[in-house]
Amino acid sequence: MDFSLTPEQQALRAMARRLAVERFAPKAFTWKGFAWENARILASLGLTGITLAPEDGGQGGSLLDAVLVMEAVSEVCPHSGDAVQATNFGAIRQVSTFGSAAVKRDVLPLLLSGEGLISAGMSEAEAGSALTDLRTTARYEGDEVVLNGEKLWSSYAPEITHSVVWARFGPRARDIGCVVVPVTAPGFSKGVAGTYMSGEHHGALYMEECRVPRSYVLADSDALRTMFTVFGIERIGNATRALSLAQAAFDRAVAHAKTRTQFGRPLCEFQGLQWRFADMRMKLDAARLLIYRAVQNADDGAPDPAEAAIAKCFANEAAFEIANQALQVFGASGYSTEYPMEYYVRRTRGWMIAGGSVEMMRNHVAEAVFDRRFPRRP
Amino acid sequence: MDFSLTPEQQALRAMARRLAVERFAPKAFTWKGFAWENARILASLGLTGITLAPEDGGQGGSLLDAVLVMEAVSEVCPHSGDAVQATNFGAIRQVSTFGSAAVKRDVLPLLLSGEGLISAGMSEAEAGSALTDLRTTARYEGDEVVLNGEKLWSSYAPEITHSVVWARFGPRARDIGCVVVPVTAPGFSKGVAGTYMSGEHHGALYMEECRVPRSYVLADSDALRTMFTVFGIERIGNATRALSLAQAAFDRAVAHAKTRTQFGRPLCEFQGLQWRFADMRMKLDAARLLIYRAVQNADDGAPDPAEAAIAKCFANEAAFEIANQALQVFGASGYSTEYPMEYYVRRTRGWMIAGGSVEMMRNHVAEAVFDRRFPRRP
Amino acid sequence: MDFSLTPEQQALRAMARRLAVERFAPKAFTWKGFAWENARILASLGLTGITLAPEDGGQGGSLLDAVLVMEAVSEVCPHSGDAVQATNFGAIRQVSTFGSAAVKRDVLPLLLSGEGLISAGMSEAEAGSALTDLRTTARYEGDEVVLNGEKLWSSYAPEITHSVVWARFGPRARDIGCVVVPVTAPGFSKGVAGTYMSGEHHGALYMEECRVPRSYVLADSDALRTMFTVFGIERIGNATRALSLAQAAFDRAVAHAKTRTQFGRPLCEFQGLQWRFADMRMKLDAARLLIYRAVQNADDGAPDPAEAAIAKCFANEAAFEIANQALQVFGASGYSTEYPMEYYVRRTRGWMIAGGSVEMMRNHVAEAVFDRRFPRRP
Amino acid sequence: MDFSLTPEQQALRAMARRLAVERFAPKAFTWKGFAWENARILASLGLTGITLAPEDGGQGGSLLDAVLVMEAVSEVCPHSGDAVQATNFGAIRQVSTFGSAAVKRDVLPLLLSGEGLISAGMSEAEAGSALTDLRTTARYEGDEVVLNGEKLWSSYAPEITHSVVWARFGPRARDIGCVVVPVTAPGFSKGVAGTYMSGEHHGALYMEECRVPRSYVLADSDALRTMFTVFGIERIGNATRALSLAQAAFDRAVAHAKTRTQFGRPLCEFQGLQWRFADMRMKLDAARLLIYRAVQNADDGAPDPAEAAIAKCFANEAAFEIANQALQVFGASGYSTEYPMEYYVRRTRGWMIAGGSVEMMRNHVAEAVFDRRFPRRP
Repeated sequence: MDFSLTPEQQALRAMARRLAVERFAPKAFTWKGFAWENARILASLGLTGITLAPEDGGQGGSLLDAVLVMEAVSEVCPHSGDAVQATNFGAIRQVSTFGSAAVKRDVLPLLLSGEGLISAGMSEAEAGSALTDLRTTARYEGDEVVLNGEKLWSSYAPEITHSVVWARFGPRARDIGCVVVPVTAPGFSKGVAGTYMSGEHHGALYMEECRVPRSYVLADSDALRTMFTVFGIERIGNATRALSLAQAAFDRAVAHAKTRTQFGRPLCEFQGLQWRFADMRMKLDAARLLIYRAVQNADDGAPDPAEAAIAKCFANEAAFEIANQALQVFGASGYSTEYPMEYYVRRTRGWMIAGGSVEMMRNHVAEAVFDRRFPRRP
Repeated sequence: MDFSLTPEQQALRAMARRLAVERFAPKAFTWKGFAWENARILASLGLTGITLAPEDGGQGGSLLDAVLVMEAVSEVCPHSGDAVQATNFGAIRQVSTFGSAAVKRDVLPLLLSGEGLISAGMSEAEAGSALTDLRTTARYEGDEVVLNGEKLWSSYAPEITHSVVWARFGPRARDIGCVVVPVTAPGFSKGVAGTYMSGEHHGALYMEECRVPRSYVLADSDALRTMFTVFGIERIGNATRALSLAQAAFDRAVAHAKTRTQFGRPLCEFQGLQWRFADMRMKLDAARLLIYRAVQNADDGAPDPAEAAIAKCFANEAAFEIANQALQVFGASGYSTEYPMEYYVRRTRGWMIAGGSVEMMRNHVAEAVFDRRFPRRP
Repeated sequence: MDFSLTPEQQALRAMARRLAVERFAPKAFTWKGFAWENARILASLGLTGITLAPEDGGQGGSLLDAVLVMEAVSEVCPHSGDAVQATNFGAIRQVSTFGSAAVKRDVLPLLLSGEGLISAGMSEAEAGSALTDLRTTARYEGDEVVLNGEKLWSSYAPEITHSVVWARFGPRARDIGCVVVPVTAPGFSKGVAGTYMSGEHHGALYMEECRVPRSYVLADSDALRTMFTVFGIERIGNATRALSLAQAAFDRAVAHAKTRTQFGRPLCEFQGLQWRFADMRMKLDAARLLIYRAVQNADDGAPDPAEAAIAKCFANEAAFEIANQALQVFGASGYSTEYPMEYYVRRTRGWMIAGGSVEMMRNHVAEAVFDRRFPRRP
Repeated sequence: MDFSLTPEQQALRAMARRLAVERFAPKAFTWKGFAWENARILASLGLTGITLAPEDGGQGGSLLDAVLVMEAVSEVCPHSGDAVQATNFGAIRQVSTFGSAAVKRDVLPLLLSGEGLISAGMSEAEAGSALTDLRTTARYEGDEVVLNGEKLWSSYAPEITHSVVWARFGPRARDIGCVVVPVTAPGFSKGVAGTYMSGEHHGALYMEECRVPRSYVLADSDALRTMFTVFGIERIGNATRALSLAQAAFDRAVAHAKTRTQFGRPLCEFQGLQWRFADMRMKLDAARLLIYRAVQNADDGAPDPAEAAIAKCFANEAAFEIANQALQVFGASGYSTEYPMEYYVRRTRGWMIAGGSVEMMRNHVAEAVFDRRFPRRP
């Protein structure tokens, strides 16, 4: 057992942190949408596709490498962390892991260079956590696949260039598959964008006899089971961003409590606050270890589902709690939009829902505990 | 002991609720600043100054009357609840309780008619919870009092017509007093407005040889001790708004869980969620009882400080927790700004800071428990 | 609304407290089983059967009267509080509310004088929270009813003189009834006693062609639904004992923190502990109000099921938490059996299970929230 | 980074578990005092002094080795885990690390063979967490050191053969030292034994002109600072026992929930319980990782104080919480002394106090967070 980083890992993290401080910090907290500029900077420095194979344009690095970069970047600039996510942990992994040579050739270079952006098109009006209720259909027609349906809550919808659209190729749960759809595909359109509490955009995607090449199909059956491995990776990215924002909020609160005086002494001298900081620190450390464990035990790149679920659930909840406590340390200024504390709260809130809600994570953990499935249908 | 409302109280509450549903609901969640229009509607119906004496233009009602109106209105339209607060529970009570005939005559009619708005000017850069560190000075000159200093975090700063400015008439803690200052007073100016996480505005107030009539002084010594009673009333208003938003969030989540299906059945059939709803309901009930107790035991209008602190602290924290859990029930739509769930979270967050932070409330409760003061200075 | 006690209620409480301090305190924490002696003292002073009708030998008092006596007594001597429970809140209410003239005449005088003791015989090996799975049978034969079956976890089993045995008169859930069984009835026997974490005894009851007069049947159908009202009363007694022990633990911790010094100052000067005391106090107050509300709203003697469930669940969990925190204030001496702190923890732990577990309470609250039943069977 | 055990570590753990199951399980939960017999069995198998140097009679193993043995043994038999603690983690480490050749020669063979038992004599009536207030004195006289004073809460007092007595060699905080005292030393006597909530014994130690050889002095100044390293090791042992009991309670609850039916289905099918199990599992995993981290980062045998404090505080609180939840799963049988569930609760409760209370741990963590000391004296 070993809890230390190799010199190479330390160097990578230091490099990423330096980059973040020098290039990303100045514009941090000013982004209104996807940080395209920063995605391109990441690309130029080989920090996109860190875990992708070199033949796919990736760096051939480890999942831990990607996590270390994520931490270093997200702590400084959350929106740049989103760019790390999009180019390393998210739907891009669905493409790189399950895509045909054709779709990879068409799509990955765009994504890895920061010129394209892909997100998942999963949720529908009647299919949230219960994805198998989705109604979007796919059917093969010659060399093409034809999609019909409507997706909701698609991340970065106004800005994406591609979506991984989940659709049913038949009536059964096992007939669910997914397809890479360029937003330029015939029959594809976007709805009006909505905004999350965090300021991020989401939106609906419409497919009406939408046609893409057959080679863009990632799976035409059993996709949920097949893709569970890449979901694990996405969850790690999600958990790591939560951890990173919590760490940043914590660090700011520590600095504030050292210098801000009330009643003639620094806040950190009040034992009530000291114990809260101790609680925050314990949770930060625990969350980080749970994430690293899931990452390092993922020899083949796919984290153990229970370990990933534990890491995500614990990190998400700890992060929101820590961000909240950190805000509180600042009082009124913490609640004011002039400072990033309230943003940390708004942003960490979302990860308790996105990428598998903490409720779904608990369902998964319970199934691991009891080594059986618990049907949720009546 | 009796936990029921009189027929008159029930009628008052029903009237307020009807008003809120008919007049305030249509524009609810659309307000960007103070809901002036609704303040005037409240005034026209005798719902401002509920607890003020008739000779001051008030209704001569009880604190419970005001609380019932607050609940009915805030559950439907939070910003209208703020108007109830401003015209019943806040700085207006400092004026009505401690003001001279002159200042009451000049100011109260404006406030009670919804034409004026007053908030407290307490915090300074170096004086937050530790109010006695404030540096703003006041000195008498003939018939006037002259103020110099700078206030921060003044609620509704861009819109207020008056401020109750806390200032020191001498060097000692007991020399702290407070003065009603019209924003039109010579030497008075407002800084650039800031925005809280909730969207409410705050701002700095500057006083440079700012002069107001001597009769506008509410207290020129021992103001903190004297005003503690009206702080208790303000805290009740604050706690009640928190409770009301939590109740509204809870009600929406209940309705959603009854109808929204996942995995083929309504959300409310999932026991994990059922237990969360049970927890929310328990906290709602407890918070409401703690508020009502503080209110009803306040025979002379001034709640027991410990009972008010307990009500505020418990209600603030319960409300934020409940709002959060309610948001979670909605999933992505709860996190989206198209729905009010995320607003409930942002808004309830603030009351853990405003009007006496939950930390200060715990300090007060501990002092009541041990029946002694705990000096916080080194 | 009114949160104060009448002079009569205050006098009753004061009398009960005086009694407890003078007569019960000296032997408090020394009882190994049921405090028979104290039950007789309570009887001699008219503190048994407080809520029972005068014609049944009771005092014709209110449920609040009984609760006030319970609080006063239990805070001083928990085992005397158990005697208050047994003679006022528990199975005795099943007899007095649903018993025939004959069974009341035979049994109540014994119970009310402290010469008899009755507890419920409900649980079975395969029927805990799911009472409708019970297998004990009852059948009428002439003027008698004949019971067969085995009960577990019967409170005070070694000492009871009577049991209210729940049994099925037929195959359906609605065929469940209950019968008063004297331990001297033919075919009745007790198993070896077991001991709970708190030191209280429980035991198995065996009925083999056990015969009691037909008039001892309290219900021969729909007993669960019928008796729900008296369950509510029992839950109030249970919740009140939990509250009382928590209050006693809290009071001891407060006194200790005032006088015990560490690092040259009393414990109460440490802010970390102050905030914990504030939390304890908030929970105590909330629990008490939730109990009083359920009690006072129970006009006809039967608390609203949801209000009783909320009171029990909240009070049970708050009490255990408070007892734990209070123990912690004492450090090693709190953990030592020489002091009552660890007893408070062990004892309050039990009420989260007994008389309807906190999980069942949450199920009930959720059903009230959603105004529907949630079948727990597959 | 690596979260796996080496084959040797796995083999050691498996060996210890086999030993525990075969030799310790049959008598588990029957011990009334120190498990002498099992200490001798551990000694015979080389499982005492695991981390001690071979020249001191130890095994020259790593701290992780000792932790793995502790886990394997404590999960099966908590009292055997205490024997692992006494012979590996506790005061024995003070002797082996700071003892003279003479005292090591006289004392270690006894301790390592399971013939002797040593515990710390630290607390006094007026010195608990504030150890520097201790009043026991030590003075040199020729080749001897003479002790006068009284100790409280000494673990296993009735059974110990030696005590490490903390005493002041002068008036200042830095004059505090500690001395190995055989219970046979002239002037040494034991008080009447007390019992903890867990059933373990403690007691007072009296020294009246008590004389031991000068070579038995471990430190005659600055002992607190010097010994902090071995305190860290003791805390790891303490944290590991807490974790192990929690794991055992969890495993039992999992097994119970798989087989125990209520309402016609196994408990594990109830989602409310599933989510609790998920929470337990998350805390178990986090606690284990925090312990392992502190252990593995302790290159020189002394864990980082903050990492040890975090591990102890988190593991202690998580363990008590998990034991409590596990008890609840069993209902009445969990609360009954016939089953070990209530013992797990009683036992884990103690570690929140012993070996550095969770409050002191939070103080330490806060000092690490702010990188400064917080004087606790006024």
